[in-house]
Amino acid sequence: MAADEATKPPTTYEQLAAIEDDFDDVDTEILRLQYKLSSPLYNRRQEVVSHMNNSERFWPLVFEQVPEEFEKFVQPTDSELLSGALRDFNVTRFELEESAEAEDSKGEPRSLHFRFEFQANDWFEDRVLEKRIWYRHAKDGWAGLISEPVKIHWKKNKDLTQGLTDDAIALFQARSAAGDMMKQDLPEYQALVKKVESWNGANTSFFTWFAWISSRRYVGAEESAQAEKETAERREKRKQGEQVEDHSSDKVVTDQDAEVHPFGEELALALAEEVWPAATKFFIQAQEAADDEMSEAEFEEEDADESDEDDEEVSPIDIPSLVKGKKNKHDENGGPPKKRQKT
Amino acid sequence: MAADEATKPPTTYEQLAAIEDDFDDVDTEILRLQYKLSSPLYNRRQEVVSHMNNSERFWPLVFEQVPEEFEKFVQPTDSELLSGALRDFNVTRFELEESAEAEDSKGEPRSLHFRFEFQANDWFEDRVLEKRIWYRHAKDGWAGLISEPVKIHWKKNKDLTQGLTDDAIALFQARSAAGDMMKQDLPEYQALVKKVESWNGANTSFFTWFAWISSRRYVGAEESAQAEKETAERREKRKQGEQVEDHSSDKVVTDQDAEVHPFGEELALALAEEVWPAATKFFIQAQEAADDEMSEAEFEEEDADESDEDDEEVSPIDIPSLVKGKKNKHDENGGPPKKRQKT
Repeated sequence: MAADEATKPPTTYEQLAAIEDDFDDVDTEILRLQYKLSSPLYNRRQEVVSHMNNSERFWPLVFEQVPEEFEKFVQPTDSELLSGALRDFNVTRFELEESAEAEDSKGEPRSLHFRFEFQANDWFEDRVLEKRIWYRHAKDGWAGLISEPVKIHWKKNKDLTQGLTDDAIALFQARSAAGDMMKQDLPEYQALVKKVESWNGANTSFFTWFAWISSRRYVGAEESAQAEKETAERREKRKQGEQVEDHSSDKVVTDQDAEVHPFGEELALALAEEVWPAATKFFIQAQEAADDEMSEAEFEEEDADESDEDDEEVSPIDIPSLVKGKKNKHDENGGPPKKRQKT
Repeated sequence: MAADEATKPPTTYEQLAAIEDDFDDVDTEILRLQYKLSSPLYNRRQEVVSHMNNSERFWPLVFEQVPEEFEKFVQPTDSELLSGALRDFNVTRFELEESAEAEDSKGEPRSLHFRFEFQANDWFEDRVLEKRIWYRHAKDGWAGLISEPVKIHWKKNKDLTQGLTDDAIALFQARSAAGDMMKQDLPEYQALVKKVESWNGANTSFFTWFAWISSRRYVGAEESAQAEKETAERREKRKQGEQVEDHSSDKVVTDQDAEVHPFGEELALALAEEVWPAATKFFIQAQEAADDEMSEAEFEEEDADESDEDDEEVSPIDIPSLVKGKKNKHDENGGPPKKRQKT
């Protein structure tokens, strides 16, 4: 094996790497196409939900039924708040929307926009909380999701994030003013790092996520545009058979000491790829669970009072099976093949 | 909650279910588009690999590096055979290829064709083993992957499947002759069930997979066409707001007592969705592992004999980082969002 190594034409590897680059482009294009094809269906779903009798219960029920992996992101008080006050939820890929308006077919499909609508509640003044997350390129070759901290107007003594959201915003503003988004020589930096340290990644509120920035460090639009250009140039050279330097020896710079949410990216992807697409399934599951509880209650009631004749079927059609049939179909055949995976 | 139930217009649920049907169609269409966009890249990859100096080592190295989940499907003797004799491997979605030739844009993208090419070896006479797997619809509403057992011409006393592949073929032929693919009143059925039982799902050879039929039961082309038509009609009614019966109360009929490979579908999907797309990554990992071993060997040699001057770099370019850079990129940003999941 290893003896062959020296005799191999290096271009073979450059060629394989160039093909992998093109596979990445296919993945990105597939995301664009998927958004284009599924957006009208998400809109129809929102429309149908808005006409339901208990439409205000749809999203709270969905969030109650989300999968176990999601539960670690949500504390009991968060659940109480979401269950009581969440009224609408929406996920869009805003850079695709913007590029469609500009008739540009190459918008970035990985950037996400989350919109939560709340009714008046005891915790904060906001009726809408929105978070934008950009897919950006860093000058060291990294590319990934980054965001900016979002202000939540907490009511007095009701801040579920224990000041973390406010402190993250204070640092972001101080750094913006200083023109250096990695600046550490700031009182806001020291304060936030100390608080994050004492917090130690435990007991993070769902709402701390609104202040999440990145799994690595903030990357601005300008740096991203420049880095994307350089990556494209490197790829073009590689395609021409040239050997190109990559960034694998660069020192990795992170800002994680000041990051308030350790799983911000994971949570964003769970919301966009699990909760949002499977909302109907979760809603039906919640109905089913409610029916089960109901039947049990009826049974006990009946047991106690035999004269109760009023035990007609609560749900006139077989609601759960409508959507559960689908679940079985997917589970047993392994579902539609997953997208191409390279990692 | 449950008290609201009786007042809900049933059409809301029919509408939500109809939207879920349309999401399924989008998933299927996305698979078609993904195949169309990525096929030329897979062809280029095969072309580049075929011109490598050690091209005959490519697939054996890939199969050595596949992820842990895959290892349970491959016994040590299988590994020996694959490592020594596998020469080429290819996965296509043959119903898409066929429909493209017929200028039909609606081919089934979930059907798979696997082709393994071998050099002369001690185990079997075949130089090519091919397995086709169809995505088919059963009359009870189930839809999923099914296949037919594939003959392997084992050399004397070399059958790694201990006769399971031959017995599966014998039963398939007896049932075909009888015109009943579920017939149990056959000596071939009794023999196979007994053998499967004694086998108890343990120690299954990779090659037993060639005789795998289904995670449920065999479904022929005729039944599938009829069932698909009925499903489409039900969906159309549902879209028109009609309440439709589903099959959730049907008795599930399986043929698993006579199924020779308990994880046949899982293995097919692992080959098609993990091994095939990520082959370049696995190959590079294998090179890297070989380099590491080499360096260690050199280091020890050097240690023993200080006069050895011949320790130049084996790999003139940074091969691993070419593709590993990608890996980091995907890992750290969570990769491109996964496809819409509903199960």
